Amino acid sequence: MKKALPPKLIIQSGKFIWTTMWHLMMSRLAPRSPSGEYIRPESQFRRFIGTDPYPPAAGRYRLYVGLGCPWAHRTLVTRALKGLEDAIPITVVSPSPIEGGWIFQQPEEGCRTLAELYAKAQPGYAGRSTVPVLWDTETQAIVNNESSEIIVMLNSEFNEFARNPTLDLYPAELQETIDQWNARIYPAVNNGVYRCGFAQTQAAYEKACYELFSTLDEIEAALETHRYLCGDRVTLADVRLFTTLFRFDIVYYGLFKCNRRRIQDYKNLGAYLRDIYQLPRVSETCNLEAIKQEYYGNLFPLNPGGIIPVGPDMAGLMEPHGRGEGDRPKFRIPE
Amino acid sequence: MKKALPPKLIIQSGKFIWTTMWHLMMSRLAPRSPSGEYIRPESQFRRFIGTDPYPPAAGRYRLYVGLGCPWAHRTLVTRALKGLEDAIPITVVSPSPIEGGWIFQQPEEGCRTLAELYAKAQPGYAGRSTVPVLWDTETQAIVNNESSEIIVMLNSEFNEFARNPTLDLYPAELQETIDQWNARIYPAVNNGVYRCGFAQTQAAYEKACYELFSTLDEIEAALETHRYLCGDRVTLADVRLFTTLFRFDIVYYGLFKCNRRRIQDYKNLGAYLRDIYQLPRVSETCNLEAIKQEYYGNLFPLNPGGIIPVGPDMAGLMEPHGRGEGDRPKFRIPE
Repeated sequence: MKKALPPKLIIQSGKFIWTTMWHLMMSRLAPRSPSGEYIRPESQFRRFIGTDPYPPAAGRYRLYVGLGCPWAHRTLVTRALKGLEDAIPITVVSPSPIEGGWIFQQPEEGCRTLAELYAKAQPGYAGRSTVPVLWDTETQAIVNNESSEIIVMLNSEFNEFARNPTLDLYPAELQETIDQWNARIYPAVNNGVYRCGFAQTQAAYEKACYELFSTLDEIEAALETHRYLCGDRVTLADVRLFTTLFRFDIVYYGLFKCNRRRIQDYKNLGAYLRDIYQLPRVSETCNLEAIKQEYYGNLFPLNPGGIIPVGPDMAGLMEPHGRGEGDRPKFRIPE
Repeated sequence: MKKALPPKLIIQSGKFIWTTMWHLMMSRLAPRSPSGEYIRPESQFRRFIGTDPYPPAAGRYRLYVGLGCPWAHRTLVTRALKGLEDAIPITVVSPSPIEGGWIFQQPEEGCRTLAELYAKAQPGYAGRSTVPVLWDTETQAIVNNESSEIIVMLNSEFNEFARNPTLDLYPAELQETIDQWNARIYPAVNNGVYRCGFAQTQAAYEKACYELFSTLDEIEAALETHRYLCGDRVTLADVRLFTTLFRFDIVYYGLFKCNRRRIQDYKNLGAYLRDIYQLPRVSETCNLEAIKQEYYGNLFPLNPGGIIPVGPDMAGLMEPHGRGEGDRPKFRIPE
């Protein structure tokens, strides 16, 4: 007579295999240090519009973006604020749970997936195929895939084709302040939420989480007296912070365990998020459902069942922000 | 030369094995219907204090509880409100990630685990070994392991040993109302959060989630005019609701995806939670860290990495609740 395995042993070995698989899958998703901290790989295409052979032009360059991705979202917000919709077309790519990567709705440049486009641009490319990509249709090359650099180019290199050429999101007199904010906010907030969510040890998670929230506390204090990070004008520092804040209550709070507080629980950060969300054309770049779908539906080591949450209710984003009142100056971007 | 498997195939097969394992583990954790809905097994020990051979007595019966468990927590709250700490001792059991079940800190009744205690009470017992357990030290038997019945007994059968014998949490004139609330709240809220968290299909999750929040909306409306569910007095209906509400923002919102709103986002439900939390000796039954640890640390199919969140900040529980003011009557339980 066959004897069934004792349930305890089934549980133990099941859990062991499960945990081992989790670490394996996480190591593919998120490269880590020996102490379990997430280390984001560097973007590898770092060429600039305005240098040879990439002159500014309308209709020549194309942005590949995913709607869930905060890095790609930066380029969409900058493009919207500058009014570059006609000059720089976009293609929205979708994550594919089957392919494991970004895919096109219909073939582009003869490619079915973004990985194929990367391989076309650089045969033998072995890095990650990430969005955003600034693609040159003429030379069939990836100009740049680093969001922080693409938004600098969108701000300054396409003004002759922009509807808002005078809007300078990276003005010379504020560049030092902008760079200082970026240097604090990138590791602790933009990448900090990923360092929380992709941490593979309790210590690595807690370190990331405390850095995240202490930096949010600093920003909250700064926003008490400044309408935007660098004063009374929106800058690239705000664009970069915005796309992380927009996802915070939706996905980082629950899925990435960034749950000491929500952004809407902060008086200033909550209103600041609404302020930027309500700038002309910015809300059109924000897609709540795509964000939930792409994070919860695709980061399956973090959400094995693939269930997409019903909440949260984000209707409050359209409530008045009150940031242009009292001491804080009004600011308007042309419609 | 060995050729490496293409990454796509690794991802696909890895995800397939992962998903299959998830469903297997979930089926152990959470029995389900063909459509993926969680079905909670019935408690199997249903005897009553006051019936032969279980006369009311002080020091004879012992409660086995886990501090994370909302069902066990009901018995702790009832015991605290009635002042039965001296008459009915407790043993706190801990979940064991290795054993897969509840274990004792030190052997009790010759048992190392709660499963062994169940087996001792009923040789060959094949059901789940859950808390709470009301244990009779004299006959070495489980009197009852159904929380909703244990709290009825704690309310009425031990009055000669209780510090608050006149506090009736299930008075005859309110029993119909209490039972009506229980009949709504159990499936949609108490068990409803589990139906969200343990759902194995998107449809089962969404159904549970909408039922949960529409019932919370109903309760919110009722609490506009009533201080407690059944009027101006705390009843067992409140005790039963309280232990779920207390865990809501801490674990159900994130881990179980009950994230349309938090309890503290509801004006009345938030204040009602604080009101009950601030009743004498109730907060002593509440253990935030144990709850986080037991849910996030042990439900590993839902949280494969086992990371315990730092948040949320629950300091607001001690803020004034204002529920005994205006139209709503004051109510005091003796200290």
